[in-house]
Amino acid sequence: MARVVRTIARVSPETAQAFAAFGVATIHEAQGRTGLLAPYMRPIYAGARLSGAAVTVSVPPADNWMIHVAVEQCRAGDVLVVAPTSSSDAGYFGELLASSLAARGVRGLVIDAGVRDVRDLTAMQFPVWSKCISAQGTVKETLGDVNVPVVCAGMLVRPGDLIVGDDDGVVVVARADAERVLEACKSREEKEAETRKRLQAGELGLDLYAMREKLHAKGLRYVEDEDEA
Amino acid sequence: MARVVRTIARVSPETAQAFAAFGVATIHEAQGRTGLLAPYMRPIYAGARLSGAAVTVSVPPADNWMIHVAVEQCRAGDVLVVAPTSSSDAGYFGELLASSLAARGVRGLVIDAGVRDVRDLTAMQFPVWSKCISAQGTVKETLGDVNVPVVCAGMLVRPGDLIVGDDDGVVVVARADAERVLEACKSREEKEAETRKRLQAGELGLDLYAMREKLHAKGLRYVEDEDEA
Amino acid sequence: MARVVRTIARVSPETAQAFAAFGVATIHEAQGRTGLLAPYMRPIYAGARLSGAAVTVSVPPADNWMIHVAVEQCRAGDVLVVAPTSSSDAGYFGELLASSLAARGVRGLVIDAGVRDVRDLTAMQFPVWSKCISAQGTVKETLGDVNVPVVCAGMLVRPGDLIVGDDDGVVVVARADAERVLEACKSREEKEAETRKRLQAGELGLDLYAMREKLHAKGLRYVEDEDEA
Amino acid sequence: MARVVRTIARVSPETAQAFAAFGVATIHEAQGRTGLLAPYMRPIYAGARLSGAAVTVSVPPADNWMIHVAVEQCRAGDVLVVAPTSSSDAGYFGELLASSLAARGVRGLVIDAGVRDVRDLTAMQFPVWSKCISAQGTVKETLGDVNVPVVCAGMLVRPGDLIVGDDDGVVVVARADAERVLEACKSREEKEAETRKRLQAGELGLDLYAMREKLHAKGLRYVEDEDEA
Amino acid sequence: MARVVRTIARVSPETAQAFAAFGVATIHEAQGRTGLLAPYMRPIYAGARLSGAAVTVSVPPADNWMIHVAVEQCRAGDVLVVAPTSSSDAGYFGELLASSLAARGVRGLVIDAGVRDVRDLTAMQFPVWSKCISAQGTVKETLGDVNVPVVCAGMLVRPGDLIVGDDDGVVVVARADAERVLEACKSREEKEAETRKRLQAGELGLDLYAMREKLHAKGLRYVEDEDEA
Amino acid sequence: MARVVRTIARVSPETAQAFAAFGVATIHEAQGRTGLLAPYMRPIYAGARLSGAAVTVSVPPADNWMIHVAVEQCRAGDVLVVAPTSSSDAGYFGELLASSLAARGVRGLVIDAGVRDVRDLTAMQFPVWSKCISAQGTVKETLGDVNVPVVCAGMLVRPGDLIVGDDDGVVVVARADAERVLEACKSREEKEAETRKRLQAGELGLDLYAMREKLHAKGLRYVEDEDEA
Repeated sequence: MARVVRTIARVSPETAQAFAAFGVATIHEAQGRTGLLAPYMRPIYAGARLSGAAVTVSVPPADNWMIHVAVEQCRAGDVLVVAPTSSSDAGYFGELLASSLAARGVRGLVIDAGVRDVRDLTAMQFPVWSKCISAQGTVKETLGDVNVPVVCAGMLVRPGDLIVGDDDGVVVVARADAERVLEACKSREEKEAETRKRLQAGELGLDLYAMREKLHAKGLRYVEDEDEA
Repeated sequence: MARVVRTIARVSPETAQAFAAFGVATIHEAQGRTGLLAPYMRPIYAGARLSGAAVTVSVPPADNWMIHVAVEQCRAGDVLVVAPTSSSDAGYFGELLASSLAARGVRGLVIDAGVRDVRDLTAMQFPVWSKCISAQGTVKETLGDVNVPVVCAGMLVRPGDLIVGDDDGVVVVARADAERVLEACKSREEKEAETRKRLQAGELGLDLYAMREKLHAKGLRYVEDEDEA
Repeated sequence: MARVVRTIARVSPETAQAFAAFGVATIHEAQGRTGLLAPYMRPIYAGARLSGAAVTVSVPPADNWMIHVAVEQCRAGDVLVVAPTSSSDAGYFGELLASSLAARGVRGLVIDAGVRDVRDLTAMQFPVWSKCISAQGTVKETLGDVNVPVVCAGMLVRPGDLIVGDDDGVVVVARADAERVLEACKSREEKEAETRKRLQAGELGLDLYAMREKLHAKGLRYVEDEDEA
Repeated sequence: MARVVRTIARVSPETAQAFAAFGVATIHEAQGRTGLLAPYMRPIYAGARLSGAAVTVSVPPADNWMIHVAVEQCRAGDVLVVAPTSSSDAGYFGELLASSLAARGVRGLVIDAGVRDVRDLTAMQFPVWSKCISAQGTVKETLGDVNVPVVCAGMLVRPGDLIVGDDDGVVVVARADAERVLEACKSREEKEAETRKRLQAGELGLDLYAMREKLHAKGLRYVEDEDEA
Repeated sequence: MARVVRTIARVSPETAQAFAAFGVATIHEAQGRTGLLAPYMRPIYAGARLSGAAVTVSVPPADNWMIHVAVEQCRAGDVLVVAPTSSSDAGYFGELLASSLAARGVRGLVIDAGVRDVRDLTAMQFPVWSKCISAQGTVKETLGDVNVPVVCAGMLVRPGDLIVGDDDGVVVVARADAERVLEACKSREEKEAETRKRLQAGELGLDLYAMREKLHAKGLRYVEDEDEA
Repeated sequence: MARVVRTIARVSPETAQAFAAFGVATIHEAQGRTGLLAPYMRPIYAGARLSGAAVTVSVPPADNWMIHVAVEQCRAGDVLVVAPTSSSDAGYFGELLASSLAARGVRGLVIDAGVRDVRDLTAMQFPVWSKCISAQGTVKETLGDVNVPVVCAGMLVRPGDLIVGDDDGVVVVARADAERVLEACKSREEKEAETRKRLQAGELGLDLYAMREKLHAKGLRYVEDEDEA
């Protein structure tokens, strides 16, 4: 029953590109605090960033055969998203696969498992977010699926969804929600620019966000010293 | 019963400054191998350093409201120390709060939870030691306490205590012990400078520390090869 | 019954040097996907590399006395491999011990426990792979063994074995297998150079490795879209 | 945008009941080695078993308000499935909520977080599979969703899906697949009954499964002793 | 500077006894959701319970010498609370120490490390809450402190504080707060008894706690099916 | 290069039987605090015990083919010891394999991975020590080795070594050391019987082990109360 879905609807390249201006934290907030992959997903080098459409791969533990199958389904602007069917810290992916993906214009990799050749990947500036770094080799024995919905690091990712990664982690935005979330990101950033200026000038969040009354209503007390407390 | 203690006795700025010359490992040793926060507390960028007086915040899981309250209690030279009442890996703190703290001259943050916007924080050179990096947003619903004793990453921190962080982690020194520990650090460094010179010249620790006799007394045997053993 | 074995057969310096041209992942594959230490063993700075002969130390938890004993058994080109008899995250090793080892021409350290003074070690470019970074001090009370077989991060290491470390982790090659594995590395690299060129030119791994037929035989189906699936 | 979906299509009670005859491992195998929740999901007492239709709840970290909302949506034969939007080990659920669910005929709870009052829950024989046991209290401040698809312990669960739990863990079967998987379970059990009898009689799996030739073809060698190897 | 404090003020035996009627979750809630040790602290057998006054011991990693010192400071009704100065999973405590404590009327042990001889301890019905079970032996080389404040599993415990343990974990109540918290437990239990009866009768928490209006005000929507949502 | 070693020298059945009288903690101490597998190795039911000669299996991650091969190499009194070449939590072993082993008189299983069908294994009283319980299925694709030295849960196990398991975990004794360690166990138990009697009678370890002088020499001070300290 293993299958490769050849035609998927992708978030548009223009939209994916527009998201590149926003950080993962902003996008996560803008879509209502959802979509964030587990925080153990870390970039292999500081400053890594990516934004693109998901090509998804469901792989067996310690078997990277289907990644080779998935390469063919990728096009420029895509992000490969790899999720093992059970927990694995093997090194599914290295510099040769990255060369192959880079030749097709793929933006990077998100994998809920291990990655290797990180020195080479860093030199290539091929960004990867992974659960761990591991040189442990994998086999090519068992089939999986390409372009089916997967759970990657605790989050549902559908083929064609928007994936954004930066130093804070990885967030997924459902394709259908991308435009709406993009607008929400813009609004949030504009508001934050103003907030930032005022905070930098020394204004307090307590005043800027008008928190004092609500804190008082909840019962917060100010005391001079611990004895009084 | 949530409360904010407004007046705390801080380790003096001169003392805090004097500690900046010493590493976390040295201070930890100098005060008798105590005070070290759990090793999962890592700086968000290599080379981060800080030394200052603790302003403490006890926060609910995934709720950063009290950090906003704590900002007002901070002054130049302080270090914000945030401890959730139960384990959390949410991203309590980002670039806007850092801007607010930086405007007040706060030196950095120590948080037994997650932090986000690490690219911006690194650009600002606002040092943070945290349990993890996570973009996961928090709410502002439940009260906590400011400037009460907290347990942060397994160590008791009282308001006004000295906090020092570097690439090795974070150490706390009780305010009352700071002068004594500072002297002990100086003695230790002086002794180590001499030791370093001799080790670099090829002298063995076995001789320099006069260990051979004690090892022999404990029963250590030297054999030529494994067969003899 | 604690003992120090003085004479060990080491992998030759020439062989160790020749391995420096290969990455950990390549070596691990070339010797049949074995020898890799657990992926939690991470270098203290990016770009760290080493290749040398193992001097092994079995140490009690949180006690670094035997490391001082082991220093004397090291010579130029060696790598110190430290394994606690039970799990420990204490900081067994710092800049003074590194100075002592560097004075003897030792290449670096592999330790299944904690290390400290990482800023200094980085400045010295003394490479270390460790389970964690921790300033936690250790004692000098209990004996252990030097140059006996140890299990380090899940892998058996015998004195004199070849140790190679890079950004991907650490691999051990049994002394007796070193020449054979070296040849296998060379063959593998040559083959990969050709493969890389073809992948970079856009050829697919599916074709290059002739996978299509085998995938088909295993039952992989291609469908146009999810509905068809 | 928080919402409660009132009408869901459930796997039929007869089907759910029929699955009670099979273990989690059998069901997982029968549907092609999928559907298993992460192995950290453990029953609070040995011998716990359940089979029923999922009512799903997406909850904020450390906030159990929506569980109260979900109770009303449950009916006899259901299983409550609770998934936090970010990782939490708080104790969301205890004996009072269990009393409420039991009064409605709910079969048990699956929660990717903590549970408490386990002595009472055990006395009630109300089965729970959870990530941990924790008495840590939660708040009732923030909304979530009831009867939407959730990711629970790494697996997608849709409202109305079949949930089966036993000492081996928890498996989910999509509602649409339930009948097919049930038949596959029956076939598997029948075949295993025969296999079991032959293995108990001393026949070897090597012969029973006709593995010898395939092993030989892959290159397995038998040697008399290690020296020969 | 290691020391043993001989005279400590203990929570009264009557108070400690009165707490035995309440579960850990109830006590934790009654004192404002504080005092709970980390959830990794688990009882070595199901049904274990204890309530008593803390005698505290600060121990080095993998060194149990000070536990022998602490035994002498214990009296009937006490609970021994052991906290290593840095993380350790060694087996500090076994059946001989338990025999010694039982002979003095000590109620049980709480240890943020490992314990061994669990079969014997279970047979003796000597309750222990620990981080892990480990047979790993410890040494008797380095001093620590008895009856000083310690941080145990993330919580501050002072000598003489009340410790209560059950299947849900361990909670500490400051000696000074014990009477107040006891009253709060009684009130809570009374209220819960009434609540339980109503929930068992089928009344919903939504109505009993009058949540509907607040949920509506926060914006919760009810929809018939997912399409409507 | 995968191989099965057919003839191994086993610890004698009489010796293995004699060890059954001793607990894991006693054996670990008697052989000098070595040989203990990592404490994450837990029995699947309380009260499980075993003692026998190791038949070792090195298996790929998530592939249990070689366990079928190993069954044939087992005889009455053996213990199967399974170690994956890289970390895996898959469920390699269940009730059918146990039936096959039980038919040959095998005593039990030690596996540094997952196990399933624990309800059935418990009913059969077939003892297993594992890293986790997991129903996750495995494949039969890749070879491994039988009766070669393996590292299992951090400890080297050679074919024919003695394996003992109980509620405290698992210990390995090298075949060559078994007689010597057995004698040491007997001595230890005799001494402990006397010690136990005296401790139960209220004598203090401080006196029985004559610790007071050594503690005093190390600098331990007794103070009346905290103020004095």
